[in-house]
Amino acid sequence: MNTMKLVTIITESILEPKVVEDLTLLGARGYTVVDARGSGSRGMRSADWDQNQNIRLEVICSEQVATIILEHLQKEYYSNYAMVVYVSDVSVVQPEKF
Amino acid sequence: MNTMKLVTIITESILEPKVVEDLTLLGARGYTVVDARGSGSRGMRSADWDQNQNIRLEVICSEQVATIILEHLQKEYYSNYAMVVYVSDVSVVQPEKF
Amino acid sequence: MNTMKLVTIITESILEPKVVEDLTLLGARGYTVVDARGSGSRGMRSADWDQNQNIRLEVICSEQVATIILEHLQKEYYSNYAMVVYVSDVSVVQPEKF
Repeated sequence: MNTMKLVTIITESILEPKVVEDLTLLGARGYTVVDARGSGSRGMRSADWDQNQNIRLEVICSEQVATIILEHLQKEYYSNYAMVVYVSDVSVVQPEKF
Repeated sequence: MNTMKLVTIITESILEPKVVEDLTLLGARGYTVVDARGSGSRGMRSADWDQNQNIRLEVICSEQVATIILEHLQKEYYSNYAMVVYVSDVSVVQPEKF
Repeated sequence: MNTMKLVTIITESILEPKVVEDLTLLGARGYTVVDARGSGSRGMRSADWDQNQNIRLEVICSEQVATIILEHLQKEYYSNYAMVVYVSDVSVVQPEKF
């Protein structure tokens, strides 16, 4: 078993195509999205935020790629969109997949 | 990066409004819900439990709030509802959000 | 609080009944499924893979059962299906449930 980083992104569903594109460009080799709803503190566009139109997106990647993803998301989206990102350690059998 | 607690609650969808209200009162500042299905050991009302009507609710919070949430859920719901709760450590960039 | 293993399986939705049956036979006492979409490296049947027809399945179990599940999934599905499996540590209040 190998330890990798699991990056979980909760954000507005409208961002899905853009964030998925970003993740791929930044080195992620796969991702999983589920539809979600919820509430939380958020950016300036919060007035437009439909709480039934969120996504929960997760990516398994190396620590290096995780750091790059976090810096990018923070710079690109945090001030204008509802976005929560958290990272945890996971064990995987096939690290070459990620 | 700051370490916070991620509390995940799997329960019957009928409890969503009540549990969300509880979480807010107990100090959670945001939550994410996804629709789920499944099976597991549960409380006395299990006969009524439609396994396609579950939710998976997650909350990021301080360790202190996590402890309060766990004690409350256990006291309020464990004996009468299908509910599984687990806690893990996550790293976040903006701990002031939670 | 007791530490258990959380096994998360991302795979094609067509496998849901079979994998759920496997998990139960291998000792899992509950599971949660959510519908998902996504992309990633995968097995030989990738041409058939509709990326809107995935599931995200999670199971809390002992380390021993987690090991058995991982070995089984790897042997049974990895070469022919899109499947990602990862494991993390979680704390639970009622370990006897799992």
